[in-house]
Amino acid sequence: MSDAAEVLARCAELDRFTSCAPALERVHLSPEHARANAAAAGWMEAAGLSTWTDAAGNVCGRREGREPGLPALLLGSHLDTVPDAGSYDGMLGVVMAIAVVARLGDRADTLPFALEVIGFGDEEGARFGTALLGSQAVAGAWDEEWWDLRDRDGVTLHRAFHDFGLDPRRVGEAARPPESLVGYLEAHIEQGPYLEARDEPLGYVTAIAGARRFRLSVVGEARHAGGTPYARRRDALVGASEAIVAIERLAKASECIATVGRIEVTPGAVNVIPGRADLSLDLRAATDRERDAMWERLEAEVRGLCDARGLRFEALEVHRAPAVPCAPWLQQAVVDGIRAAGLAEPLGLWSRAGHDAMAMAAVTDVGMLFVRCFDGISHHPDEDVREVDVAAAIDALEHAVLAVAERRSA
Amino acid sequence: MSDAAEVLARCAELDRFTSCAPALERVHLSPEHARANAAAAGWMEAAGLSTWTDAAGNVCGRREGREPGLPALLLGSHLDTVPDAGSYDGMLGVVMAIAVVARLGDRADTLPFALEVIGFGDEEGARFGTALLGSQAVAGAWDEEWWDLRDRDGVTLHRAFHDFGLDPRRVGEAARPPESLVGYLEAHIEQGPYLEARDEPLGYVTAIAGARRFRLSVVGEARHAGGTPYARRRDALVGASEAIVAIERLAKASECIATVGRIEVTPGAVNVIPGRADLSLDLRAATDRERDAMWERLEAEVRGLCDARGLRFEALEVHRAPAVPCAPWLQQAVVDGIRAAGLAEPLGLWSRAGHDAMAMAAVTDVGMLFVRCFDGISHHPDEDVREVDVAAAIDALEHAVLAVAERRSA
Repeated sequence: MSDAAEVLARCAELDRFTSCAPALERVHLSPEHARANAAAAGWMEAAGLSTWTDAAGNVCGRREGREPGLPALLLGSHLDTVPDAGSYDGMLGVVMAIAVVARLGDRADTLPFALEVIGFGDEEGARFGTALLGSQAVAGAWDEEWWDLRDRDGVTLHRAFHDFGLDPRRVGEAARPPESLVGYLEAHIEQGPYLEARDEPLGYVTAIAGARRFRLSVVGEARHAGGTPYARRRDALVGASEAIVAIERLAKASECIATVGRIEVTPGAVNVIPGRADLSLDLRAATDRERDAMWERLEAEVRGLCDARGLRFEALEVHRAPAVPCAPWLQQAVVDGIRAAGLAEPLGLWSRAGHDAMAMAAVTDVGMLFVRCFDGISHHPDEDVREVDVAAAIDALEHAVLAVAERRSA
Repeated sequence: MSDAAEVLARCAELDRFTSCAPALERVHLSPEHARANAAAAGWMEAAGLSTWTDAAGNVCGRREGREPGLPALLLGSHLDTVPDAGSYDGMLGVVMAIAVVARLGDRADTLPFALEVIGFGDEEGARFGTALLGSQAVAGAWDEEWWDLRDRDGVTLHRAFHDFGLDPRRVGEAARPPESLVGYLEAHIEQGPYLEARDEPLGYVTAIAGARRFRLSVVGEARHAGGTPYARRRDALVGASEAIVAIERLAKASECIATVGRIEVTPGAVNVIPGRADLSLDLRAATDRERDAMWERLEAEVRGLCDARGLRFEALEVHRAPAVPCAPWLQQAVVDGIRAAGLAEPLGLWSRAGHDAMAMAAVTDVGMLFVRCFDGISHHPDEDVREVDVAAAIDALEHAVLAVAERRSA
């Protein structure tokens, strides 16, 4: 089996670790997460890495370089998924990183850095709403307020750590000092249609757009659906619906992207006027300035709509990641890698999706390699990549590692 | 303690049987339902009724009339609630019926019919979406397709029957032959503002507006919230939101009332474009003709909105109850009862809310007594009634029973 075929087979194997087969859903600190970590650790050990689970639940492996204790070049991505996910978002980057270490083999022993692979436990934020919990722990950016975040069943993050066998008091031990790291390199499917449109299998990432996420609440009054005349109604769902339509209209007219992915109404009975609607808002733009200006417009618009209906409007920011540039020298290493894989003119892209590299940028330089995916589809079971593209991506990532080594040795 | 004070105390006592104290939520065939049935049965026995749970989970009590085995005048209402409910919708009618039997005492032994009290287990439809399951079983209108209805946790109605200790194969035994019944009399809070606006404590019901309920589905495509440009999006939630706004606009311009009380989006993650939205629609009007015409307009409008966005639209009717007139002779008995309670000019109303009487009308004549409630509020913890109004209502219901007896003896 070729390295690429093995990578794809391993992604398929990870599909088995799901809370709702045949669909794929693997959220942070779930039993499936533990099983995916165990599988990844097994593959890491077969590739000559010594492995451990860090204090935040990330699965880690290390192979020393030409002497023990050198700073590490981290390769990785995440192992958690959204609900009803595809097989590659995150997982491909972890499994490819393991394949690269395996392929380097004894050559790794001569590198002027240690090689580490990391599979982050939370990038998507699907369970607790706040994303990048795994990489933020490694970047030393943990926020004590997160302990009270709750999942849909009311389980706090603190409790979930315990249930996973982790000690919340020790989460700080997951943080890596900057001097222990050379940089962070992540391979990931593009999750967009640009590489496919240009007929390019690979691309290097110039920057990652920042996202802001909010929890929006529209509060009216729950009343009987039959007995309450329209003049007496304060229907939170109709207000929220006007807000959702307005959010799309304003974002579409700008360079921003705004998505309401979740909505919950209370009490949520067929014959009761909704008294409250809670929704998520995910807001992205190429620059922080555009994104923040869009939020101000959206907030004013939605507040106005709610006021007009006698509804209360509340907004709580739950996540904010600034746009992150990839380090020029790591962009260059990825470009060198793509060229070594046989592509003359590597294409540079900025990422509209968030990535673990965003969090890692707080503690070390980051670079990213994008792999073409089918029809730009991601966060969906139809997510797909071609084996030939994965083969090229393994070549490129391996040579990017060697390019970093050359630079460090120079 | 006066009869009215005792009725209110018993309604408060039933509040304890809830799945989420201090809020009140008691759905069909839940452990709380069993406990409410047991409490009601205890009160019935204290009032001289012999009690049983019927094959559909309704709690029943009977006191024979001047000879055993006479057809029964049924008094009752329901014991299930919506989520975050008030204390009176349904429960007041059951508890008042028990109070009336208790007050009649030995006089019941002279009546030309048996007296029965029934506490229906499902009127609201909060658990399985389809309403009036309890009264439809008694009316012999059970539909075998209901067995596959599922609650939010995926539990079928069939399974819920088993879990409640009922044998689904025997549900037909709950059906009452028409010849075993004299009629059905239900007392209920108005759930609207009309009695209060006229400063009247009581009213008699002329007819109950029919409701139709639908499950509407808007189907688009789940994709990554960041990577998918607007031109490629088929966002089911934005389409559903346009539909919700249009439904309100069209209904408001008519004499109909249309409510979307529930919405669920799939996959429901903050960073995934919703691929599917499922919503409930509850539609009511004074006449079936107006209501059906409104549905045709709404369906055409929503289908057009979805088509324009490349979304699929599906509508499934899950409940249809025709408008039900109260029997003139039972209206007259309720009028006589209200007059006997000291009110010279009883007010006639049509009910915009659905009631168990709608289902019971398929098997016997029905009549209803409305009790004023605070600010028209219902399906909300602020639901409230005055003790003085409840006292008048007990008088009126007792005298309505005697008026029926006079008519049967004449």
